[in-house]
Amino acid sequence: MPGPFISFLTDFGLDTAPATCRGVIWSICPEARINDLSHTSRQFAVRDGAVLLWSSVPYLPVGVHLAVVDPGVGTARRGIAIEAARGDRLVGPDNGLLVPAAERLGGIVAVHALAEQRYWRDAVSHTFHGRDIFAPVAAHLASGTAIAEMGPAIDPTDLVRLPWPEASASGGRLRTSVLFVDAFGNCRLAGQPAELASLRGRLEPGDRFRVQVNGTEELVAWQPTFGAVEPGTLVLYEDADYAGLAIAENQGSATSRLGLENDTAVVIEPA
Amino acid sequence: MPGPFISFLTDFGLDTAPATCRGVIWSICPEARINDLSHTSRQFAVRDGAVLLWSSVPYLPVGVHLAVVDPGVGTARRGIAIEAARGDRLVGPDNGLLVPAAERLGGIVAVHALAEQRYWRDAVSHTFHGRDIFAPVAAHLASGTAIAEMGPAIDPTDLVRLPWPEASASGGRLRTSVLFVDAFGNCRLAGQPAELASLRGRLEPGDRFRVQVNGTEELVAWQPTFGAVEPGTLVLYEDADYAGLAIAENQGSATSRLGLENDTAVVIEPA
Amino acid sequence: MPGPFISFLTDFGLDTAPATCRGVIWSICPEARINDLSHTSRQFAVRDGAVLLWSSVPYLPVGVHLAVVDPGVGTARRGIAIEAARGDRLVGPDNGLLVPAAERLGGIVAVHALAEQRYWRDAVSHTFHGRDIFAPVAAHLASGTAIAEMGPAIDPTDLVRLPWPEASASGGRLRTSVLFVDAFGNCRLAGQPAELASLRGRLEPGDRFRVQVNGTEELVAWQPTFGAVEPGTLVLYEDADYAGLAIAENQGSATSRLGLENDTAVVIEPA
Repeated sequence: MPGPFISFLTDFGLDTAPATCRGVIWSICPEARINDLSHTSRQFAVRDGAVLLWSSVPYLPVGVHLAVVDPGVGTARRGIAIEAARGDRLVGPDNGLLVPAAERLGGIVAVHALAEQRYWRDAVSHTFHGRDIFAPVAAHLASGTAIAEMGPAIDPTDLVRLPWPEASASGGRLRTSVLFVDAFGNCRLAGQPAELASLRGRLEPGDRFRVQVNGTEELVAWQPTFGAVEPGTLVLYEDADYAGLAIAENQGSATSRLGLENDTAVVIEPA
Repeated sequence: MPGPFISFLTDFGLDTAPATCRGVIWSICPEARINDLSHTSRQFAVRDGAVLLWSSVPYLPVGVHLAVVDPGVGTARRGIAIEAARGDRLVGPDNGLLVPAAERLGGIVAVHALAEQRYWRDAVSHTFHGRDIFAPVAAHLASGTAIAEMGPAIDPTDLVRLPWPEASASGGRLRTSVLFVDAFGNCRLAGQPAELASLRGRLEPGDRFRVQVNGTEELVAWQPTFGAVEPGTLVLYEDADYAGLAIAENQGSATSRLGLENDTAVVIEPA
Repeated sequence: MPGPFISFLTDFGLDTAPATCRGVIWSICPEARINDLSHTSRQFAVRDGAVLLWSSVPYLPVGVHLAVVDPGVGTARRGIAIEAARGDRLVGPDNGLLVPAAERLGGIVAVHALAEQRYWRDAVSHTFHGRDIFAPVAAHLASGTAIAEMGPAIDPTDLVRLPWPEASASGGRLRTSVLFVDAFGNCRLAGQPAELASLRGRLEPGDRFRVQVNGTEELVAWQPTFGAVEPGTLVLYEDADYAGLAIAENQGSATSRLGLENDTAVVIEPA
């Protein structure tokens, strides 16, 4: 019988910090199967972490999802555990990191503040709650402890929520912006293919658009995949993680080429 | 009884893409032991991935080897599963990535095209076959499904094969080239120590060679290991992964010093 | 019953070298639970590896700790296995890498030289003892083989030990230096908060100090955590791994800002 599943996302980088958290988890729940989602989420960037978690959870087994991008560690911000409708539990700081993933897992069923210190490490530092609070709580939840044991219930509407970029179509243009830049230099945009399709009533491979960004304009075709265009050519396509709009350069970096970063404004219109 | 072994190599980088593949694997085969070979294989560089896989498989348990460096994802290129003589199965795109490793595992016994969609994820994206086709196929193979279930047999001679650099000794010189540059800045060259030895009928620690590359010439000794020379000194030695020729700088980067990259020409002659 | 625990630290980088070591471990001890501490410890920097291992082991289950930062691979330096009082065994080169961690695990109980080749891979390269000697020895220890089987006992006082930076307080100043720079750009300093407190008989949140480094002086407050100061502001605090002194910039890099590297001198006095 395989052990319980724990996914683990942080901005801790490639030093030993994630490993000490895994050590704490395995000290409490030695049979846990731990899946490191990423530890190079952009430092201090809560929305980047939220996007990565939200993008990943549909492809993971039901389990505990431990996520720590926590610039407020040691301040008054709360620690929380969320139960989602699919049966997953999410553990981390109450700074907006967990909410989009919980909603993608069917919605929030319950939230509890992390208050019961018997589920924490005996000694809690001021600067490493990932290891001292969040990891042991995740391990206890994975071991079967009920979420309600972790502390008092919180009204889900009281949770911190992040602003989330949206797209709007009007006057024959889609006004969107950069949601996330990935490790390939591909770029996710706010909005869905249906919104792009609404501009001319269809969206077929080869349909061409003018993409305006940072004062320049590029002519870009909608295609199902990168290899449908020549290397070095831009392509608009449907992101594989959540079926949203995305732009890439085949075998290159759209991010570098267009100078994209989070929230860069992008305007798209049929060509 | 330990779970089945799956190795996993990609050029996906340090974002969450490898983790979502592991999530898919564990959803199908929860007891799998997954060994991440590397996810920073140079992007879009199929030969680099092929070298890393070929270099690694002799040191891994018999199992399933999942490898995805796939610039042609979503185009007409095939997905394949190869059975090797040692008992391993290799899964990935038919672009030359898997063949050298399969040959190093005793040779190709059978190849099947990935065609049976019941072994894939229900929804298959155009841009992420690693997660939607290759990972679930690897998990099903690890769980005991026969390779012939995955799709029709392919003639091994029909597989895409990569050009592979070779060395040639003539006129008292070995003409070789860069096969691969590793994370230390050490550099693997085409050819074997025996070919270097053929230049003067022996190859002993301390034997000196003229190494000509990028218009410069360096005097470099053959040694068993880095520490046989001073820090900052170049050394010719036998690569630990496949007993081929290699050049390094002790506690430095031969790659930076000599401006090496894949296929850079290198000429070596006795000094 | 969960498998034996093995932690694994190297400076091998993100190529396949750590994975081939894990492949060797799982070939010998298929049920091992392997926790990769880090593989991006600074290359050839034995003290950096020693600091990371020493910082991590208190948070790990009792087990085998495999560590390889080994610029002398293939030379006369010994391979060793150390038994620590807590019950852990540490495996790696005799270059000072393992000793601080062993002392933090209660002290050295026994040391054995790695001499019995039947616990190594059949073929041992000159340049990759991590894979060919240290990994298989760690796997055999995890599988239950006694440490005394690995080779003759060594007097612990004969082990190579690294110089370790210390702080000294006199004339109202604490003279310290950089012990380690982490992935966030935070910087650990030699010495303890008690030594800083000794300068004026107390150490309370908000107490201000003059920090002199590289010819500049900064006014920095002692605080429990990063978020107690504004983003972009320096902060002195207690390191979470070993309760030593540390300096950081909230949501930035103290290392870049102050030009810190290992052993940079730092002088601190009350402001």
